[in-house]
Amino acid sequence: MEKKILLTDCPDDKGLIAKITNICYKHQLNIIRNHEFVDRQQGRFFMRTVLEGIFNDIIFLEDLDMALPQGAERQLVSAGRKRLVLMVTREPHCLGDILMKGYSGAMDVEIAAVISNHPDLAGLVQKFDIPFHCVPTEELARCEHEQQVAAVVDEYRPDYLVLAKYMRILTPAFVTRYSGRMINIHHSFLPAFIGARPYQQAYERGVKIIGATAHFVTDHLDEGPIIEQDVIHVDHAHSAASMAEAGRDVEKLVLSRALLMVLQERVFIHGNKTVVFK
Amino acid sequence: MEKKILLTDCPDDKGLIAKITNICYKHQLNIIRNHEFVDRQQGRFFMRTVLEGIFNDIIFLEDLDMALPQGAERQLVSAGRKRLVLMVTREPHCLGDILMKGYSGAMDVEIAAVISNHPDLAGLVQKFDIPFHCVPTEELARCEHEQQVAAVVDEYRPDYLVLAKYMRILTPAFVTRYSGRMINIHHSFLPAFIGARPYQQAYERGVKIIGATAHFVTDHLDEGPIIEQDVIHVDHAHSAASMAEAGRDVEKLVLSRALLMVLQERVFIHGNKTVVFK
Amino acid sequence: MEKKILLTDCPDDKGLIAKITNICYKHQLNIIRNHEFVDRQQGRFFMRTVLEGIFNDIIFLEDLDMALPQGAERQLVSAGRKRLVLMVTREPHCLGDILMKGYSGAMDVEIAAVISNHPDLAGLVQKFDIPFHCVPTEELARCEHEQQVAAVVDEYRPDYLVLAKYMRILTPAFVTRYSGRMINIHHSFLPAFIGARPYQQAYERGVKIIGATAHFVTDHLDEGPIIEQDVIHVDHAHSAASMAEAGRDVEKLVLSRALLMVLQERVFIHGNKTVVFK
Amino acid sequence: MEKKILLTDCPDDKGLIAKITNICYKHQLNIIRNHEFVDRQQGRFFMRTVLEGIFNDIIFLEDLDMALPQGAERQLVSAGRKRLVLMVTREPHCLGDILMKGYSGAMDVEIAAVISNHPDLAGLVQKFDIPFHCVPTEELARCEHEQQVAAVVDEYRPDYLVLAKYMRILTPAFVTRYSGRMINIHHSFLPAFIGARPYQQAYERGVKIIGATAHFVTDHLDEGPIIEQDVIHVDHAHSAASMAEAGRDVEKLVLSRALLMVLQERVFIHGNKTVVFK
Repeated sequence: MEKKILLTDCPDDKGLIAKITNICYKHQLNIIRNHEFVDRQQGRFFMRTVLEGIFNDIIFLEDLDMALPQGAERQLVSAGRKRLVLMVTREPHCLGDILMKGYSGAMDVEIAAVISNHPDLAGLVQKFDIPFHCVPTEELARCEHEQQVAAVVDEYRPDYLVLAKYMRILTPAFVTRYSGRMINIHHSFLPAFIGARPYQQAYERGVKIIGATAHFVTDHLDEGPIIEQDVIHVDHAHSAASMAEAGRDVEKLVLSRALLMVLQERVFIHGNKTVVFK
Repeated sequence: MEKKILLTDCPDDKGLIAKITNICYKHQLNIIRNHEFVDRQQGRFFMRTVLEGIFNDIIFLEDLDMALPQGAERQLVSAGRKRLVLMVTREPHCLGDILMKGYSGAMDVEIAAVISNHPDLAGLVQKFDIPFHCVPTEELARCEHEQQVAAVVDEYRPDYLVLAKYMRILTPAFVTRYSGRMINIHHSFLPAFIGARPYQQAYERGVKIIGATAHFVTDHLDEGPIIEQDVIHVDHAHSAASMAEAGRDVEKLVLSRALLMVLQERVFIHGNKTVVFK
Repeated sequence: MEKKILLTDCPDDKGLIAKITNICYKHQLNIIRNHEFVDRQQGRFFMRTVLEGIFNDIIFLEDLDMALPQGAERQLVSAGRKRLVLMVTREPHCLGDILMKGYSGAMDVEIAAVISNHPDLAGLVQKFDIPFHCVPTEELARCEHEQQVAAVVDEYRPDYLVLAKYMRILTPAFVTRYSGRMINIHHSFLPAFIGARPYQQAYERGVKIIGATAHFVTDHLDEGPIIEQDVIHVDHAHSAASMAEAGRDVEKLVLSRALLMVLQERVFIHGNKTVVFK
Repeated sequence: MEKKILLTDCPDDKGLIAKITNICYKHQLNIIRNHEFVDRQQGRFFMRTVLEGIFNDIIFLEDLDMALPQGAERQLVSAGRKRLVLMVTREPHCLGDILMKGYSGAMDVEIAAVISNHPDLAGLVQKFDIPFHCVPTEELARCEHEQQVAAVVDEYRPDYLVLAKYMRILTPAFVTRYSGRMINIHHSFLPAFIGARPYQQAYERGVKIIGATAHFVTDHLDEGPIIEQDVIHVDHAHSAASMAEAGRDVEKLVLSRALLMVLQERVFIHGNKTVVFK
């Protein structure tokens, strides 16, 4: 008996749940968990179905394709381990958290490699016997640098590329190359405090809450579909530096939670939003 | 076009989702929202299906009954307003919150009556033109008092009976009479600090968190299926009294959230637990 | 024995705590609670001292003035009940919460009057035997309308003016008139989604968190010193309307908490920020 | 200029803040931060004073001793790095979090050694070049085993001993030896679910919240003064195993926060409670 996840994303139509679950039943696949959502404004249907049984993928998907409306996307994926490449700069908190969760099995991932534009985090990565690639930016045009990075990434054929505090802006070309597969943690509560030195901005504004946002990177670095957000409380006694320190805790928490959702195939991209079946 | 909610609670079986949604499709009922859960340890299946269309309840339920396994419970309920009777003693915070939410429409209820063993809250209730019944306990045996209370309750035929800080222990006879329809807010984080003066107990133990628990009342007052829980942080500067004050905020929040879930037919009782489709 | 609160706000200097507490000791005033904060970047000292004893205010303050540096502000206030005037438009949730907390004693206030630009909430206010003044905007220039409102406000000489979902922009003249005494609840997580229809904006952006901000109103309506902020989680299943509904719960919570802090004299305005001694 | 922290814990008396801060002023020590609390029921005064200046510890403390009442305890400690010994069994999540925070500087500690009754975590500890001591329990009486553990601990002279998921009950003799210096993370929300298999207990009870408690270990393993507690929400879809998984996240969070407070000398033990100046 195998376990697979069926992901359906299609125009809404009458009887979709019945049609899809009928085909599962006909194939003697047991439904372990089923989540469904219809965006009625946009007329779009999303369903995540965890199945158990003996799969004949080709015939099952052919049967599905006959039942689903035009414009349907469907995937039958295995529930197992995913492969990540991480991109970092100098800050160890998000990287360290993912390394540790990968090591302990709390996150079911193979961390294939870590790429950085600085050498600082090599020592930490090597402790975990994971390849570390430093691709320095010096004397390189932005697109040349990105080509070098992409060459390293592609060598590892990751399922997802995680920007775990990669502090360099990426060009649309790079972003498009990994569209829907690249996840970023943003160091503040979007859409507030976009841009440089967000904790300094937050400090100057006297906010009582510091947040973080994990999102897919699509066209623009900080504006892709949001997967997860959270906040922590701060007060007048926090300096900009201690706000940043507090922010690091929430950043790593939010990135980890978002990654878990993505790795378990719980996240659909829906225009500039996400559907997350928790 | 009408909107109704189908609630299915039955032994787990293959193809249940397909069977049920087929019948909906055959009756041309559109599925607006569908939540499903299987307790695999206990082999029990729960599904909440929000339907839109033109209903022929009798034939629809007959069709369902033929498809569902032995021991299935199913209900087709309208999504509309529910009728409550509230029971209180002296504290106004939970009562006031429900009165206000009913008044403003934030909670879709008809508050049919408020019953108390003390006269203190009559003034508050009458502001909202709702009948207030004081059933004092003096000179009455416990079961006599409860019979008087039950007589008042039954006059209003409520969908649910809400113990909004009713501070008197109820007998099994009373509890059984309203089994599955009576909701209590417990003034602590169950199962900690069961019994009298929970905030004093919490203060003496030096806890850093105060909680509240909303639950169905079944056999024993504080041990029924939990619907909702939450907490707030306290510290060394809190006295037992200020812990109680803080506790009131979380009590009313938790009771309101639990009620909303129940009123929207999102809660199944499952042995001594609940399944809550949020 | 009386209880009073000494609020000191002055340029930082060596030995300030010693100097101030010496004077308290000399006057045989017992310090019940003391909170102190120094903004070292700005060189500003803040202290809130809860005192118990027999007060000779004039001599005590003279002694203090000799000890404190140039530019010091100090106030000796009684810890008792404050008087509020509330301003509202059509939404009852924040108003209802404050009315109920005032009624039950959870908030130690006298709600002197409620002023609105619409008649909708008259019924709710009158249940609590509080004067309701409708000052309609029709056929009035903005400044004329504000003059009429100010005339009503001033009649009641409130300690604080609370904008409990007053949905009209105020002119700098009005704002200045009540500077440091006017508190607003903003219907989103500042500084994101400033402007019209914030929940629609939040929905379109696909955020996973909805927030609220309580702040003093100074120069510009939404940019004064923040007192309190909080958030609640939302997901893809929320419409703009259900985000607004969820937002209402956090709005009333945040406004209540901010008010409690202000009423207990725990809040100092410090430039465009606040110091809040919780 | 040095920075030190003065910790005062004494019977309450009039003028204590004035007396203490006078002595600081006389010694030309600048008060950076001051927190004070009086437990008026017990008549006990607590103050934490962060001082900057040139210290003559002996004379300063002599001056203090003359000013403080009988039974006063006071300490003048440096604000710097503390030395820890960690005790673990098999679970890596709390250990990994502390190792990473020590490595990155997020926690200002020297992790002198890790001791375990099992060899499983040796590999993780050695990545960070920290001595790992396995003291197996086989063929040893409980007190013999503890003597061997204590011998290893004492070799490193730690400021604090941290039970980071050490799953063995300790005898009163061992507990007394490190009284006030040993911190434990309890795998549930105390005082609920004391004892074995707390997540199984929580699952069976159908709770909607999972918590963790960090506390000093005094007489009995799970009943010492609580430093920090927090919770996360769970629902019907959690098995006992996934509750435990969720619990791990909150356990490491709570232990880290408690340790930070202790390491920064913000925690006083007060009978069976704590005073924590955040």
